[in-house]
Amino acid sequence: MNFIDGGVTAPKGYKASGIYAGIKKKRKDIALVYSTVPAVGAGTFTTNVVKAAPVNWDMKLTRESEHIQAVIINSGIANACTGEEGQKNNYLMAKAVADNLQIPVESVYTASTGVIGKQLPIDLIIESVPKLAEELDDTKEAGTLAAQAIMTTDTYIKECAVSFYISSKEVTLGGMAKGSGMIHPNMATLIGVLTTDLAISKELLQEALSENVKHTFNMISVDRDTSTNDSVFLLANGLAGNPVIKEKNEDYYTFCKALNMVMTKLAKMLAADGEGATKLLEVTVKGALTWEDAASLSKSVISSNLVKTAIFGNDANWGRILCALGYGGVEFNPDRVDLFIESEKGSLKLVENGIATGYSEETATDILSGKEVKVLVDLKQGPASATAWGCDLTYDYVKINADYRS
Amino acid sequence: MNFIDGGVTAPKGYKASGIYAGIKKKRKDIALVYSTVPAVGAGTFTTNVVKAAPVNWDMKLTRESEHIQAVIINSGIANACTGEEGQKNNYLMAKAVADNLQIPVESVYTASTGVIGKQLPIDLIIESVPKLAEELDDTKEAGTLAAQAIMTTDTYIKECAVSFYISSKEVTLGGMAKGSGMIHPNMATLIGVLTTDLAISKELLQEALSENVKHTFNMISVDRDTSTNDSVFLLANGLAGNPVIKEKNEDYYTFCKALNMVMTKLAKMLAADGEGATKLLEVTVKGALTWEDAASLSKSVISSNLVKTAIFGNDANWGRILCALGYGGVEFNPDRVDLFIESEKGSLKLVENGIATGYSEETATDILSGKEVKVLVDLKQGPASATAWGCDLTYDYVKINADYRS
Repeated sequence: MNFIDGGVTAPKGYKASGIYAGIKKKRKDIALVYSTVPAVGAGTFTTNVVKAAPVNWDMKLTRESEHIQAVIINSGIANACTGEEGQKNNYLMAKAVADNLQIPVESVYTASTGVIGKQLPIDLIIESVPKLAEELDDTKEAGTLAAQAIMTTDTYIKECAVSFYISSKEVTLGGMAKGSGMIHPNMATLIGVLTTDLAISKELLQEALSENVKHTFNMISVDRDTSTNDSVFLLANGLAGNPVIKEKNEDYYTFCKALNMVMTKLAKMLAADGEGATKLLEVTVKGALTWEDAASLSKSVISSNLVKTAIFGNDANWGRILCALGYGGVEFNPDRVDLFIESEKGSLKLVENGIATGYSEETATDILSGKEVKVLVDLKQGPASATAWGCDLTYDYVKINADYRS
Repeated sequence: MNFIDGGVTAPKGYKASGIYAGIKKKRKDIALVYSTVPAVGAGTFTTNVVKAAPVNWDMKLTRESEHIQAVIINSGIANACTGEEGQKNNYLMAKAVADNLQIPVESVYTASTGVIGKQLPIDLIIESVPKLAEELDDTKEAGTLAAQAIMTTDTYIKECAVSFYISSKEVTLGGMAKGSGMIHPNMATLIGVLTTDLAISKELLQEALSENVKHTFNMISVDRDTSTNDSVFLLANGLAGNPVIKEKNEDYYTFCKALNMVMTKLAKMLAADGEGATKLLEVTVKGALTWEDAASLSKSVISSNLVKTAIFGNDANWGRILCALGYGGVEFNPDRVDLFIESEKGSLKLVENGIATGYSEETATDILSGKEVKVLVDLKQGPASATAWGCDLTYDYVKINADYRS
């Protein structure tokens, strides 16, 4: 099982395109992913009570549609808090794709990301669909254009793919995602599109996605703000030719492993490219009683503004980490906690049994000045561990968000 | 019932002092509040699992001590994550005060605030206690010196007092508090000391404090970080001469009203002086089914980094407010929400039934450029309302916290 080049167009039978429709000022703002044959689809969506129009549409499709064949995504405007007009526009966006590709409208997922509260320029979007369809291609470059068109404040493209074997058939899984503010996923996150040529039942595809989202996309946070538009889609079109997976057998878990690889890689890319971020922060809590405990505690640490600013300042202010563990909603004995930091520059034990070791502040500062900073917390009270990913909180986060709309 | 000049020394029989002991580099760092006669005491404390040494001591005293007569507070070092040595130092701090004032050690509350993980310079503290005791005074100025000595990154002193009548006896309630980072109280907050000459039973004093904390100090947030040291103390020494309040009668609620006035005023001062803040943000949610719902939703909005940066940028990005309501953990119908903004510069309706009114962005920006920005959300589904206080998120918050220790 290895990473290969490419993203959503890496598996057999997928095409993609990304163009400029005029929603944003200059940059590409609309993307299409298409399976040349009907695929089964799965999705996980935001738990925010305020759901964007496309999220309501996609949740309905995930429940009711036998097959999914296309995903259209625009960036620039989120189509959230837009009332009935927003729902109508969302339907027209799906319908334009369906008519053009001659597939049922109920097989077209939609997603929008950007400013909340504005109506989509639906005429511009409808006008752009023929060109979007015309440019559909199965090349690596076409996948990258799609990944580029869904970006908002992201500073780089996020895509990857994995190749593996099931019953001696080569299977490929590809994906793309965008961040990078309003990121504190709960059940799903931001926008992610995953494609595979695996043959699998709709039910197991959904189960594999939901389970893996918990451990990957849901374990990142940029700013504790759970978006109105979080959506992750997974399409499986069966073109790999493996025997259809209909039960939780060895093949199913091979696929889950691939899904975990792709989603973890995308999740880390999303965290590292959080708005204004200068580094990736990875926090692992081990020695917890349950995975849920370890997950709550590691997410509490990566979500703390005070931890994030200290990491930005290369300051080994571990008291803030213990503090964030302490309000993480889990009982533990602070007097047993060990804490380590690590980066490409070295590693160091800062805390033993709840109090400071005699570590060198200078060494600690040097380690924290790395690009990928890891914090390891050992509670020493059980067998479970979990990892969460975040980033530092910087002047640029404030800058980007104080004048996002201007 | 009116605000009067002064703070903790305003009620009869209270003295205070604040001096420099050498814990911080230059500024005053140790304060003492003393009741000349034994008082009943109440306290509310952090829910953080990681509790500072003084918090554990104070919780024990709150449960077990008949009377409280003094509160000693140092700033500069939090005495949190300091193990057994920290507990011993905390006891020595209380003991020094008890010996000097010739009162039982079990009647001395302690509090520390500042950097986590460092040991207190206990010798310096013990040496400073005689001077601290010697300078105790019942003047307004002495109260202000104490309020000054407990500050960390606070930029101004926070104190106030209220005078009122119970059974034709004049009663006074005074208070002081400090912020201003690691502020997301849960059951209690930061450090606050309240004094009154009211005569009241210990049980009702605690009940009045706990109930009022819920509606005041617990309704503010600077950065969503619940501290290890949050403590609010309330002493009542009976010198006003009113009949002792032993049941929830009219007198009790008169006192609760005074307590609410003082604690609300201190809470707003704390929020407005949040680290790096340039303005106070007040969010009221009305039309909710219950107070708990309204409180959760208003706290969700004042805690959102994206709302806070938009307010800093005078950007009427109301979509972020609706988004923060949406992940506040409460079900409501987004399509019924009305939203208004207000400041000393005017007021404006931004949202009606979940979508934008045709408001002028220019007017909205002007209103948001005020010093006290209010957001009013009407859910239009019930009778309950709640107000929460916070501040904007600025470059200075990042600056202060990226190099807090250096």
